[in-house]
Order: sequence, then C-alpha cells, then structure tokens
Amino acid sequence: MTALNAAVFGEVLLRLTAPGREALLQSGRLEAWFGGAEANVAAGLASLGHEARIITALPGNTIGQGCLGELRRNGLDTRHVLRGEGRMGLYFHTSGAMRRPAEIVYDRAHSAFCHTAPERWDWGRALDGVSWLHLSGITPALGAGPARAALDAASAARARGAQVSFDVNYRPMLWGGREGEAAQVLRTLAAHVTLLFASAGDLARMVEFEAGPDPDLSLAAGAKAAFAAFPDLAHIATTFRVSRGTLDQTLSARLISRDGVTDAGPELMDGIVERIGGGDAFAAGLIDGLARGGARETALADALTLMAVKHSMPGDQCKVRREDIAAWREGRDLKR
Amino acid sequence: MTALNAAVFGEVLLRLTAPGREALLQSGRLEAWFGGAEANVAAGLASLGHEARIITALPGNTIGQGCLGELRRNGLDTRHVLRGEGRMGLYFHTSGAMRRPAEIVYDRAHSAFCHTAPERWDWGRALDGVSWLHLSGITPALGAGPARAALDAASAARARGAQVSFDVNYRPMLWGGREGEAAQVLRTLAAHVTLLFASAGDLARMVEFEAGPDPDLSLAAGAKAAFAAFPDLAHIATTFRVSRGTLDQTLSARLISRDGVTDAGPELMDGIVERIGGGDAFAAGLIDGLARGGARETALADALTLMAVKHSMPGDQCKVRREDIAAWREGRDLKR
Amino acid sequence: MTALNAAVFGEVLLRLTAPGREALLQSGRLEAWFGGAEANVAAGLASLGHEARIITALPGNTIGQGCLGELRRNGLDTRHVLRGEGRMGLYFHTSGAMRRPAEIVYDRAHSAFCHTAPERWDWGRALDGVSWLHLSGITPALGAGPARAALDAASAARARGAQVSFDVNYRPMLWGGREGEAAQVLRTLAAHVTLLFASAGDLARMVEFEAGPDPDLSLAAGAKAAFAAFPDLAHIATTFRVSRGTLDQTLSARLISRDGVTDAGPELMDGIVERIGGGDAFAAGLIDGLARGGARETALADALTLMAVKHSMPGDQCKVRREDIAAWREGRDLKR
Amino acid sequence: MTALNAAVFGEVLLRLTAPGREALLQSGRLEAWFGGAEANVAAGLASLGHEARIITALPGNTIGQGCLGELRRNGLDTRHVLRGEGRMGLYFHTSGAMRRPAEIVYDRAHSAFCHTAPERWDWGRALDGVSWLHLSGITPALGAGPARAALDAASAARARGAQVSFDVNYRPMLWGGREGEAAQVLRTLAAHVTLLFASAGDLARMVEFEAGPDPDLSLAAGAKAAFAAFPDLAHIATTFRVSRGTLDQTLSARLISRDGVTDAGPELMDGIVERIGGGDAFAAGLIDGLARGGARETALADALTLMAVKHSMPGDQCKVRREDIAAWREGRDLKR
Amino acid sequence: MTALNAAVFGEVLLRLTAPGREALLQSGRLEAWFGGAEANVAAGLASLGHEARIITALPGNTIGQGCLGELRRNGLDTRHVLRGEGRMGLYFHTSGAMRRPAEIVYDRAHSAFCHTAPERWDWGRALDGVSWLHLSGITPALGAGPARAALDAASAARARGAQVSFDVNYRPMLWGGREGEAAQVLRTLAAHVTLLFASAGDLARMVEFEAGPDPDLSLAAGAKAAFAAFPDLAHIATTFRVSRGTLDQTLSARLISRDGVTDAGPELMDGIVERIGGGDAFAAGLIDGLARGGARETALADALTLMAVKHSMPGDQCKVRREDIAAWREGRDLKR
Amino acid sequence: MTALNAAVFGEVLLRLTAPGREALLQSGRLEAWFGGAEANVAAGLASLGHEARIITALPGNTIGQGCLGELRRNGLDTRHVLRGEGRMGLYFHTSGAMRRPAEIVYDRAHSAFCHTAPERWDWGRALDGVSWLHLSGITPALGAGPARAALDAASAARARGAQVSFDVNYRPMLWGGREGEAAQVLRTLAAHVTLLFASAGDLARMVEFEAGPDPDLSLAAGAKAAFAAFPDLAHIATTFRVSRGTLDQTLSARLISRDGVTDAGPELMDGIVERIGGGDAFAAGLIDGLARGGARETALADALTLMAVKHSMPGDQCKVRREDIAAWREGRDLKR
Repeated sequence: MTALNAAVFGEVLLRLTAPGREALLQSGRLEAWFGGAEANVAAGLASLGHEARIITALPGNTIGQGCLGELRRNGLDTRHVLRGEGRMGLYFHTSGAMRRPAEIVYDRAHSAFCHTAPERWDWGRALDGVSWLHLSGITPALGAGPARAALDAASAARARGAQVSFDVNYRPMLWGGREGEAAQVLRTLAAHVTLLFASAGDLARMVEFEAGPDPDLSLAAGAKAAFAAFPDLAHIATTFRVSRGTLDQTLSARLISRDGVTDAGPELMDGIVERIGGGDAFAAGLIDGLARGGARETALADALTLMAVKHSMPGDQCKVRREDIAAWREGRDLKR
Repeated sequence: MTALNAAVFGEVLLRLTAPGREALLQSGRLEAWFGGAEANVAAGLASLGHEARIITALPGNTIGQGCLGELRRNGLDTRHVLRGEGRMGLYFHTSGAMRRPAEIVYDRAHSAFCHTAPERWDWGRALDGVSWLHLSGITPALGAGPARAALDAASAARARGAQVSFDVNYRPMLWGGREGEAAQVLRTLAAHVTLLFASAGDLARMVEFEAGPDPDLSLAAGAKAAFAAFPDLAHIATTFRVSRGTLDQTLSARLISRDGVTDAGPELMDGIVERIGGGDAFAAGLIDGLARGGARETALADALTLMAVKHSMPGDQCKVRREDIAAWREGRDLKR
Repeated sequence: MTALNAAVFGEVLLRLTAPGREALLQSGRLEAWFGGAEANVAAGLASLGHEARIITALPGNTIGQGCLGELRRNGLDTRHVLRGEGRMGLYFHTSGAMRRPAEIVYDRAHSAFCHTAPERWDWGRALDGVSWLHLSGITPALGAGPARAALDAASAARARGAQVSFDVNYRPMLWGGREGEAAQVLRTLAAHVTLLFASAGDLARMVEFEAGPDPDLSLAAGAKAAFAAFPDLAHIATTFRVSRGTLDQTLSARLISRDGVTDAGPELMDGIVERIGGGDAFAAGLIDGLARGGARETALADALTLMAVKHSMPGDQCKVRREDIAAWREGRDLKR
Repeated sequence: MTALNAAVFGEVLLRLTAPGREALLQSGRLEAWFGGAEANVAAGLASLGHEARIITALPGNTIGQGCLGELRRNGLDTRHVLRGEGRMGLYFHTSGAMRRPAEIVYDRAHSAFCHTAPERWDWGRALDGVSWLHLSGITPALGAGPARAALDAASAARARGAQVSFDVNYRPMLWGGREGEAAQVLRTLAAHVTLLFASAGDLARMVEFEAGPDPDLSLAAGAKAAFAAFPDLAHIATTFRVSRGTLDQTLSARLISRDGVTDAGPELMDGIVERIGGGDAFAAGLIDGLARGGARETALADALTLMAVKHSMPGDQCKVRREDIAAWREGRDLKR
Repeated sequence: MTALNAAVFGEVLLRLTAPGREALLQSGRLEAWFGGAEANVAAGLASLGHEARIITALPGNTIGQGCLGELRRNGLDTRHVLRGEGRMGLYFHTSGAMRRPAEIVYDRAHSAFCHTAPERWDWGRALDGVSWLHLSGITPALGAGPARAALDAASAARARGAQVSFDVNYRPMLWGGREGEAAQVLRTLAAHVTLLFASAGDLARMVEFEAGPDPDLSLAAGAKAAFAAFPDLAHIATTFRVSRGTLDQTLSARLISRDGVTDAGPELMDGIVERIGGGDAFAAGLIDGLARGGARETALADALTLMAVKHSMPGDQCKVRREDIAAWREGRDLKR
Repeated sequence: MTALNAAVFGEVLLRLTAPGREALLQSGRLEAWFGGAEANVAAGLASLGHEARIITALPGNTIGQGCLGELRRNGLDTRHVLRGEGRMGLYFHTSGAMRRPAEIVYDRAHSAFCHTAPERWDWGRALDGVSWLHLSGITPALGAGPARAALDAASAARARGAQVSFDVNYRPMLWGGREGEAAQVLRTLAAHVTLLFASAGDLARMVEFEAGPDPDLSLAAGAKAAFAAFPDLAHIATTFRVSRGTLDQTLSARLISRDGVTDAGPELMDGIVERIGGGDAFAAGLIDGLARGGARETALADALTLMAVKHSMPGDQCKVRREDIAAWREGRDLKR
C-alpha cells in the first residue's frame, strides 16, 4: 500500500495550560500548546508516514505565525493555511489530578477561522490530489460559515473519489443557540462520509432509532439506522472510557462495519499524563489501519494502542512512528 | 443562612519545598509557599463565600510583607495582622514519593508570632462582629505567651456569643519541654470550645477515659468524657487515614454529636499531589456545613470531599468554590 | 496629612509575556501578569500607605478569580469589582532587547469590562468616602459605554469634593473608528479634572493652541489653553523619554501649575528590566506627593524616582514603600 | 565493624533527560545528570558511611570538570580520576510514563574512558588500602582496553586481599562485534570475584549449565556451576522485576551463598519516579550488609529497600543515610 | 522581483547552552537549540519570504527527528534531508557576560553528516529548480567527503545557472591535520562562487596578495586578487566587529563589487543577548537584497540591521519579517 | 613553587535569592546557594590548583548535608567540618537592577556555627600541615565564642609557621551590642596576621591614625600605623569601587607592602551579573599570587581580574582555572 495523501479541515486553538498539577494561574506560569481535533489527526498521520496537509485559517499576527511553525514542526503541509483578520481562539486549561477534574475556560469566539467566509476556501486547489479527508463536528458547531465550508469540503472530496472520515464529537455548549439546526447540518454532512466516529449519543443527533437502556443494543440500533440513512458510509467507530479518577481510566473500542463488528481493548491506563488528543490519536490510527487494508482487528487494536499511548504524552499530538508501536504495546524500553 | 464572619488566630509559616519529587536541595531550586493550620482554614472558608479574617503577627520585613500579600490573595481580611520584631518561622519540605516519606526540617523558633506578648492582642477590636473563631493546638504548644493569647481569644469569642472550633493536633515535638503542662492548657482552652477536632489520642491528652484496643470504642469513650468535661462542646470531629504509600491513601471521617454519630467515607486517594492542608480543608468544610445548618451527613461528606480534593492541589490552601464541589465529587470536567 | 482614600476606575488586562528575551512563543512558556493603567496607580498608592480601591469588572470565571486575587495581593480593596459576562481582555507581549523593540499583540475586544452597561456602576456606593479618583484615557477609548461610565465617575467624584486625576494617554489604535468623537469626549471628562497627565500631543486632542516646532513652547501653550478651558484644573504633569535603545533611556518630568513650573530629572536608565507601568508609577508618586502637600519639587522628584525604579522591576506594579525611596535614589543596598 | 575502604572502577556518563514526562526535545530543555553503574554504587556506599573512591577517566574539558564536581558532591574520593583526551560519553533519555517505555539514545563512543590505555592505570596506587572493589560488566564490554584494565584491577585487588564484587549486567548492544569473546572475558574476570550480581541469563554467558523452563531451577543450576568454576566466589545475588507498566513494578531479591539461599521481597512500587540506578542501590546495600557481617536476611532486605527507595528519587544515586532506612521502610515522615 | 528558490548545504548541530549567565553545568539544566551556519541562512531567507530548502544529513534516531522538526518549524523545505548512520554533532556553550568570554566545548566528530559518502547526494534532484545556493567553509573543513560534496554542489548549481554564495569562515581548529590542503580546496570551490563572504584573512587562505598593516588596503588587495582569480565572482562582503566586552560591540560592513565599494554601519550593540548566528543573518540579508536587485546601499544596510537584530534574540536563527525591518531599525514598538 | 595547603575558618550561609531581577517572593520561586566569605576564598584557591580545607560547623540535618555536598563540589576538603545542634544561618536576597539596590533580609542568628563552643575546635588536627590560613572579620563579630575560636586559629596557625590572612570587612550591624569590644578583638587577631585586607575605615577600627579628607593619605597613614602595631604584618590590600548604578561599577586595587605600594585597575564593569563573592575572589587571587612569589604587579592585577570576573558569574564562588585568566582578561572566546 502507498501512503495516504490526507487532508484535514478545522480550527487550531492555542491552549494555555497550568504547569504540573497547579490550578489555573496559581503560579504566574502558563504553557502554550497548539492543537485542534483535526490538526491532531493530521499530525498522527504524518508521524505514521503519510502526507498530511491542514486546511485552516490563522490570524496574520505573531501568534498565528507561531501556530504555523508548530504545525510545520508536526510534519504538516501548511501551504493551504489562510492568514487573515480575527483573533487566535484559545482556552485556559488545567489537567486535574486524582479525582479533581480537568478545568477548561474557553475563549475561542471571534477567531480568524470563524471569520473566514466559506467562499474564501478554494477546495479545488486545497484538495488537489487528496485521497482522504478528515473533519470533525466541532467545525459545523462554530457557525453557519464553518458549517457551509465543512459541507463544501466533504462534498468536493467525495467528488474527487477521496474517503471522508468525520468525528461527530457533539458538544451542546459549542452549538449554543444553533442546537436546533444541528441534526440537519450533521445529516447533510454525513451523506458524504465513509468512516464515522460516533457514540450512540452522537448517532441519536443524526438519525432516528430506539435508544434503550442497553448501550450495546443502542449503538447497534444507531449504527443500523446510520447505514440505512447514509449509503456511502462503510464503518462506524466508537470508543468507551471508564473512569476511576481523572488520571486512572480504562479504554476500549468498537468498529461496526456493514458486514460485522470488531472489538479491541480493554486498555488500562494509570497515571494519565494528558488526556487531550486521545480520541484524535485513535482516529489517526484507525484511518491508517483501514487505509492500509490489513485486518480490521489489527487496525482497531493499533488505533486503541495509539489512543492509550497518547495519554502518556504531554501536548495534543500523538507523534508515534509505526516501528515503535510494538514496543509501546509491550512496554519494552527503546534503546537506540 | 447568611455567611459566617469568621476569624482564625495562629501562626503562618514559610514553607520551602523541593520542586517535583526532588530531595531537599538536590537542585538549587526551592518553591516558597505560605501557610498555617488556621490560615488554611480561613482561606477555605473565604473560598466558600464567608468573611474570614486572620489574627496573627508577621515580621516587619519583606518576607512578612510577602506573606501578607499571599494571605490577601487568599481572600483573607488582614487588618488585624500585627507586624513586629522576630523572624518568619519556616520549614524545609520534600513531599516524598511512592513509599518514600515526606521530610520536614523545622526552623520555626524565634518567630515574630512567638515573640508577640499576649497583651499586645486587642481581642475586643480583633473579634468585633465575629460569629465563629477557629484555633488549633499548635498555638499553645509554641510557648506560654501564645498559649495565653489563644485562651484569651477563645474566652473573648465565647463572651461575644461566637462559636469556637479547636483542632487539637497534638505534636509532642512542638511542646518540647512543656509537655507536662499540655493537658492543663488544652483543658482550659477546651472549656470554651463548641466544635472539637480531635483523635482518640488527642482526647487522651485532655480528659481521662479508658482507651482500649478497639479504636472505635476508645474514641466513643473519649468523646463521652469530653462532653462531660466541657459543657459548651456540641460536636467532636475526627478523620482516619489508611496509608498504602506516601501518595496512596484512604480517608474517612466521623462526627460525634451529643445526640448521635455521623460517618462519611471512605475516600480513596491515588497519586496524591500534596498532603499539607488536608485536615484544614476538612475543618473549613465542616465549619461551613454546620454553620449553614443543613443535614450533618451532607456537612461531613462535603468536608471529607474537600479534604480529598485538597490532596490533589499544590499549595497549602483548598480554594474550592461551593458550586464546584459536586463536579469534584463526580469527577466531571469543568468547562466554562 | 492623613492617607488618601483613593479610588481608580478602569480595565484590568491579562498580560502574557515571553520569558527572558525570547520572542513570542519561541519556547512554549508564557508568564501571566495582571495589570492596567489605573490598577497600577492604585497598587502604587497602596504601597505608599494609602487606602486604594479599584472599581472594575471582571469575568465570573477562573481567570477573573485569579485577577481578583492578584489585585488583593497588591493591597487593593476589591469590594467594588463587578463580576459578569464577557471575557478577560488580554495581550501577548515581548519586552525586546537592545534596539529590538517590544512587541504587543492585543486581544482585548469583547471583555467583561467593555460589556458592562454604564448604568450597572453604582457610583454612590463605589465612591463613598473617596477623596481622590484616578482615571485614564484608555477607558473612554474602549467604547461609548465605558466613556459614559468614566464621565459619570468623574462627575460623581467631583460632586463629592474629591480630587480627580486623569492620564490622557491618547492611543489612536484603541479609538479606532471613534477617533472623531475623541476630542469631545476628552473635553467633557477634563472639565471634572484637577490633575491632568498629558503631553503636548495629548493636549492638542482636547484644546486648541498653536503647536510650534519648539516642544517646550508647545507644551506651555497647550497648558495655558487647558487652564483656560477647564476651571477645576490645578496641575498638568508630563514626562519626557529619550531612547538610546529599547533598554537604555533617559527620563525627565515637568509639572505645570497655574502659578509656575517645576522640573525634575534627568534620570538615566540603563539595562531596563520592564517598561510597562512606568508612567503609572509616576502618577502614583505625584498624586501621593501633591496630596501630602509638601514642596512640589519633592513631589515631582519622588514621582520621577518611582518611575525610574519601576523600570527595574518585573511586573506592572511599582510596589515601593515610602521609607525605601531614599535608598533607591541613592543606590544604597537595603539590609534588614 | 569498621567502615569499608571501597573503590569502584568504571565509566561515568552524562545523562541528558527530558524534563517531566516530555518526549525527547519536545521542549528545548534538558536536565543533565552524571552517573554510571560503578559510580552509583560508590555514592550509595558513601551515603551509608563508607570511604568510597572512584577510579575512572574523564575528559580534561569543562564537562569533565563538571562531572568531577558532582562525583565529589556525592561524597566520593576523586583523587584517582584521570583526565585526558576523548569526549564525555553521554546518552539522551526519557523516563516514559504509564505503559510508554523509557527511551534511550546512546552516544557514548570515543569517550576519554575508552581511550585510556590500560597501562595508564596505576593499580598499586589506586587500590592502596582498599578493602572492597566493585566492577561491572559494562567495562569489559566497552573494548579490549577497558576489559584489560578491569581484569588488572580485579586481580590487583584480590592480590591485596580485598573483596571483589562484580555486576555482570550483560548487554549485547554494548559488546557489539565482540560478543564472541564475551564469555572468555567474563570468565577470566569472575575468577577474582567474591560477590557476583547475576541473573540466570548472565550466568549462562559465563558457565555451562542446563537452563530449563523453571527460572528458579535455572538460577540454582547456574549458581552451582558458578561456584564450581570460581573458587573465590562466596555469594551470587540477583533481583527480579515484574512490570505492570513503566512506572508500576514489583521487586524481589535472592542471595545464593555456598551454604544456603536467602530471599527478600516482594516490594511493590507504584508511581516510579526514576528507574535508573535501582540495581546499583541494591548492590551498595548488599555490599554494606555483607561487609558489616550481620544476618544475611537483614542485609538482603535492606538492599532491596534501598533499591525500591531509589525508584522514588530523581537522579542516578541513592543517597540514603543508614539511620533513615527504617523510616523509609515504614513510610514514617521524617521530621527533624 | 519574484522570491528566490534558495538551497543551502551544510551540517546542523545540536547546541547545549547553559541557561541565563550560568557557567556550563553550574545548575543541572541545559537548553537545546539546533543550528548551523547554512541552516541559519536558510531560516533567515524563509522569514524574508523566500523558498528555502536545506540539504543535509541527520541521524535516523530521535535526536535527528527533533532536529528535522525544528528545521521545518523554521520554514525550511526538508525533503532533501538524508537520514543515516552516525551521531548528531553537538557542542556545549555558555554565552558569557561582561568581559567573561563565551565558552564552547565541541563534540561534533563522527556525525551523520560527516559519515555521508559524497556519492549519496543526488544533486540533480536536490538542486532542481534552485536559483541560489549557499555554502560555508565549515563543510570542506569537516573532511574529504564533505569537501567533495560541497564542490559537487557548487559546480552543479552553477551548471544550472544558479547564483552561489560562499561564507569562507576559516577555522584552523576544524581543519586540524588537513590545513595544508585548505588553500587548494577553497580555491577550487571559489571558482564557482558569485558572492563571497570573506575577511582579508580568509582571502589570504585562497589567493596571494600583499597583506600590509592597513586592514582596508589589505582587504582591497585581497579582493583585487580574488576578482582576478575567480571570474564568476561578482561581490565580496565582509563585516567588522569591535568589542568593548562580550556583550557590548560595534558592527560595520563592506561590500566590494567589481565596480565599486559600499559601506554600512556602524551599528552599536549594548547588552547582547546571543551572538550566535549574527553573521548568518547578515548573509541572509545580503543575499535577499542583492537578489531583489535594489540599491546596494539598501541591501548592505538591511543586512547589517538584521545582523544587529539577531544579537538581540535567543536561538541561532534570525526570524524577521521584511515588514518589520524598519521598525527594528527605528526602535518603534510593534503593536498589532 | 608548590601549591598551597590552605585552610579557612568561618561560617557558611544558605542564600535564598529571587530568580532573575524579581523582587523577593514576587514569584514563589527561590534559588538556593551556599556561600560565605571564607568558603568562597577557599573555593577560589581550590580552582587555582591549591589544596583548600574548610573548618566550619554545620547543622546535622539535611540542610547541613546539602551544604557539605556543595562545599565538596567546590573542591574543598571537608574532613574538618563539625556537625551539630543549631540551625543553618540563612539570608534572603535580591540582586537589584539598574539603580535599584540589592536587598538582603538576614536570618542568621542561632546557627550551628555560632553555637559551637570554642573548645570544640581541635586546631592541632584541623591545621595539621597547613601553610596558609584565611579568616574574616565576620567571625569575631558573631559572638564571643566565634571570636575566641578565630583568635585560637590564628595563633595556632602562626605557631605552625603558616601565613595568616585576614579580611576585616567591618559590619556594625553584625557586631550589634558588642561594637565596643570590636577594636580590642580585631587588634588581638591582627597581631597574628601577615596579609590584611582592609579599607581605611577598617584600619580606623584597629589602630589610631589621623584620617583626613584625602582617602589616599588616610589609607597611607592607617597602613603606617598598622605596620607599626603588628610586627608580623607584611601587606595590606584594599579595593576601591565606584558605582554608576547597581550593575555598572569600576574597580581598582592597591597593595601596600612595608617596602612600597602597588596599584591595579581600573576595571570597568557593565551589566554585573552577581556582586556577591567579588572581594573573596580578589582575596583568593592575591593569596595565590603572593604565595607563588612572582611580581606583586602581576599578583595584584590577576586578583583584580578575578574580582571583576566574579561579577559576571552567578553563585558565590569564583571558579576560574589559572590557564583561563588570560583569556578572561582579553575577552577571547574559549573554544575547546
């Protein structure tokens, strides 16, 4: 198999994190990280050896410039990044400890990404040669403009024969006053999707089915409805997290395809270093595995390993090389 | 219920802590924190929305000035802080790791607080309007002067109709050559107390009872003797800690009232960030709960949650807002 | 003389500064400082022994809470701080080095302060007992609401017999589309002012006079016009800065009163640590000196010393105690 | 018993470690530590109250000078350290987290130690007065010169009546193309050894025996063969590690003497801070215990406690004073 | 004018620098920076808006991977970077202070770059589309292989019609035993060069001329000889540095063309932050200016400004955008 | 000449310094350094290649242990360090900036050194083989016990034929209530001294002479009186400091011998990094130079260079190797 020529479209944020286990602004120090669901997936794919471009908009100022440098450092092709008016969306963050939950203070309104008019994106050029496009449900939640752009991207990608993956990641807080239109927007998008990352709850936003008390049955029912509603859809992937504390959790994953179900896990995680980006590492791993065409069991297991590994690394991106996955799974020290 | 107008009286110390899991002076860096049992209780009460003043004495120099700023940052009313001769009491500290115990090197003798003559405190002014006074057994252990001052404070507070809480926290090392007089001093103080924080061992310093091999029975016997000896006393609170390592412990709590016993816990704690100030967070939580007059079960459970939460935070103070307690208990991420 | 009961009204910002001489986001570390022209003046006054309250609005979230703690740490009375909707205004900052200029990326739009409707401020309560009010020209530049509030504050303070100082600090970038109305707004405000901090250029925004090529004559002409236009005005103060590089500069100051002119300086400054807050330290020093009623020469010289001293300190506030000013001027080591 | 006059011979390396749980060069910061198997054993012995000298070679440059200072800080006698041509061997290191393994990038070739011709060591002077010599299998793996020097040292020490301990620590990666001669080299060395630190696998490199599927039986068989082959050999010590993750492991130890077997453990370790130097702490503890002549059970248990304690400390050396071992084992806070 | 499509060929090193003004290893902290003369020039060109690719070889390990990320972050096209055997060349560094000189401990032998056989470079592919190639005299000093590769690169670039610039930067310490062949190697290279960065001393290594006591006359004589010897050569550039201390220096520059001489400076520099990379910033600025075809005076003055500006920035690269050069020269704060 | 076998006797303090240019406790970080006048001289001598032992007393706790390690790291022989009761004397420190003076808050009372009874020092053993003893006037200022011990040391050293140097360093604040006896104590000590470090003011504390308005004449008169009073005295050395700001100063030095006067300097110092330890570096340099017996001009010039160099280094000790002095004086980069 040849490497993917992947593209992602979405916003990148500046994360300002309290160092160590401090509360926000307990000391006067903050750590600055750049990330975003789609950018993280692209970085994961680049580390696995794929071409990965990011299509986004950043402010023209020094903060946007710093972000651009970090995206490049992560191995992304940044030639399709627009620079323009508007601020850098950001959020303040503490990672929590023990049972103390993480705390996030969002400050992402009025960003350059949100302010970019949908017609400014040149999808013909941006998606030229792309064989896989990844999107997330955060983008349509940000406003009518981003929603329009995401739909344009998905439809242009499908028209070019690319696979399209979509991580629903439904967040009511982001949709705010636009929650009413969410279902319609997500459905229109999903019509172009070949790989869907969605929980039963996410599916319930998009298609109608009976969600009973048994989560497995609900997910199965939701998947059935989704396959019926979206003819291009080949797979639905979802992960499960059981928390025993902010930093001690167990992960597992399920891949529902039209012709069967694959499971992976559980992965026990103690002493979590950083939760952010875990789901994005999973997405990158699964896209890689499915695109390479091997066994689904291997693809799903590798994706879950990458997700678990990401929990041990500071920063938003999971930068693991393929040749190290086995060592990570087996806990073998890497000596070079 | 209206907020308390609380006061605390006690010494504040400078803590010099090795960063991370380092041994003392392993690197040349130290972190400076200010705290003290009573100041920590006051900070906890302030975070829960109460008025909280601190009555203490600090050196007139820059170190005392820095301490004053931190007390104010914690939301305390510092208008009753004396400034004077004498040094800032301090201690060096490492937090330990795994089964490696914490290490503390005390250097607190000759402090401005200890040097303050008891007659310099103007209790009429300092306790004006106060509805709750909190003290700890560290103060009388520091010398005859502090012991006299603590007694004056407790008696003046009771005379004004305020509730008086007292955390015995008996430390033989501090009493040093004055251990013989400890029982008498503590008894005289306890005569003014309405809420006592004490273990069975603490009670055995103050009243006579038969301490058998069963800790529950001993505590019950001690409580009975204390209620008999101290007519103002309404409640005795105690916490239990089971250690599986320096950073993995289990907490529970018991509140013995004249008319019954309330229990809370256990709270499992893994990966403790900072143990200092845990008991003070508990005291603040219980004072808050009892003063607000709700169910004792809720008061005790909230106090224990605050104590556990404190173990996840660097620094000496537990600065949790009331509206966040539920999220902390449930481990829900705080997104704002 | 008794200490002032001072108040300031204005916005507080979060400053995110690159550590050391780094460029913005060169490393992933940022230092967080809170400050604002008016808050800095208040902190300077508190350090000099005055009562100083701040009237402002902060977001209700954890960032606003952190700001509140820092204001308290600086000795300010924060009982008149509103908490509400809107974000914390912030800016990114590098201090520069050699001839490399400082760089500031503003991100202060949509702040809680700007969003506060002018009628929410209760000037009767907020200015109760106040003998001096300090404002700056940044507030009216932020929008019609803040401009209205600043005018209300000045007029209410004068009505109560307080002195009113106003630092024009004209910044075209802030006024943006509202530059046309600036003159009228500033003039209306100045009608209530007793001490004006203004350069010749600032005066030219407010009153008409002939600004010739000689800066001294221009300033004199502007002052004459201002005294004519604003009957309450007693003094106009201005500072001059000559730069030989970002970190090597010379300061001097002039105080123009209705009955004469006082000069101070020059102060040579090499190896500047932090320029932010220099003018605010000068304002605090001059308010203190004039309020205490001594010789104007002393007041102006002390104010200029504080301004120079501030350039040697990290952070926005000049926290110098009165008893140390002489040592600072003479360069005597402080041994305590 | 009197304190040992111990010597160690071996290379010291510069370790460049990513701070916290970072990946290598994720931020631009590195922590520099000096250590080496033999130097770590010497530091452990010095902390336990013994005289401990190190015989090694360091570059004549500033890096070598820094290393010398650290060795002295650890209490070692450095008068027998040669300074010369060649670089400081170093390695880059990340400690891992959760199941993420540690990563080490070696860069130790061409070091001053390796470049030192065997005839430059003056064993008569270097071992003068020494009662115990400790070596490790790393030294002979570094090249023919170091192997010759190690053999000379062991034989000179025995000739002077000193005990000789040897930690086989077989690492194929280090032997590289010289693996074929390893058995012969190790055997020749072992002929001078009185205390051998070796796993069953290490023994299989040196003597012939039947290594079956049962690890206990294999070790017993290997020990029997070793005692037969090496007449000076009195004890063989080995430790067992069971990993549940990079930072959660269980340790136990076995000491096989000619007249019986002693066991210690298990020691459970959660939240490991630093694994490096654990085996060296064990070696120091066992040498101390055997040399002091008490019960073997105590010696082995103390050695295992030191090994576990080392896992809680940053840096390569286990600097525990004898009087604190009990507190460490019992998890009692050290208050001084 | 259109942007250059520039390429550089040369080694990249890891710099391990003591933080602040510390001596090497005074604390256990080091800062890691990647840089190299040619890579720095490329980064400068990329910041000025040109396409800039780097042709180099890095180790295949994690250190090489980290270097690759930093090169990309600097805006370089890294598709022509080889990965292979050998270590990362590195050096330890302190920046000095006052009159304390900088200290550098080199440890760059045996690097992946030096180990790359000259025939591994595919100049046809690596220089495809390139309009400017930059080299430095460090590369031929590293060994016969690198010297061969540099010559191949220069000759291939000229054959494709590209301009070739060469910074002689003669360092006897690097040439070591190969000093005898330096003249011949440099001369062969210079035959392909169109822009030469060289001092009079550098020229004396390459061509014969009378170097008298007057430096200006010597430089003129050397330039005349060089123009005679190397027919493609259009310009010779040189900079002069006068030191009043490690951190206080004055710079000036001269450009000698076949038809005249251009001078720039002096630039006074006080409080230098970082000297490394100054000459590379000058080279980038001059290449940019000459390629854009404007007045030589402007080109040289801008190049000198960039060189001075670089002295105010940590790190090896001068990342200044063209639109900011004027603000830097005038010392205007950048507000965005 | 052979290396000295030097000894120093005096207290070592823990210095807690605010990082960078921060005010004390502005952030919660402190840097810990160990130093003391005599210990600094010893470290300087050790770096210059001499044997240097320190005779002092440290607390038996972990802080004393940390100090001991640092002394050893500085190359000192610590076998004559007593461990005992009492605390570690310490002081808080900020270095100042521009004209902002340094600030020191002393907290050194009740130290282990001060508590050591004079008879506990075993001078026969401690001074065995010593050829030079260095003392300072701080020790007798600390109390009657230390004064007695210093006198015993000086007299024992002279009795063994060693040279004795004494740095008067008169500090009224330290003598406190004992100022009246200072003259007598210093005179008794000086009777054993061969090299005296003293200003005219210091001399005036010890001998009677006419101190006129001309500082040169006063010093000459004081020296004449001292040579008359103290027959063993061979040299008096003094340094002069002219300050243009906290971090910009000029140094010069004078050595008055019985047969003539030698001068050195001036040394201009800009951008001072750390002033502490400058005089001690001078003392070490002069002791070294005089002991080596070369020209006095060279000895004094080298001593002054070391003093200036020390101002460029963090920490209390001047660790310069003899072979680097020339490079430091000439500002040549050190490349190794």
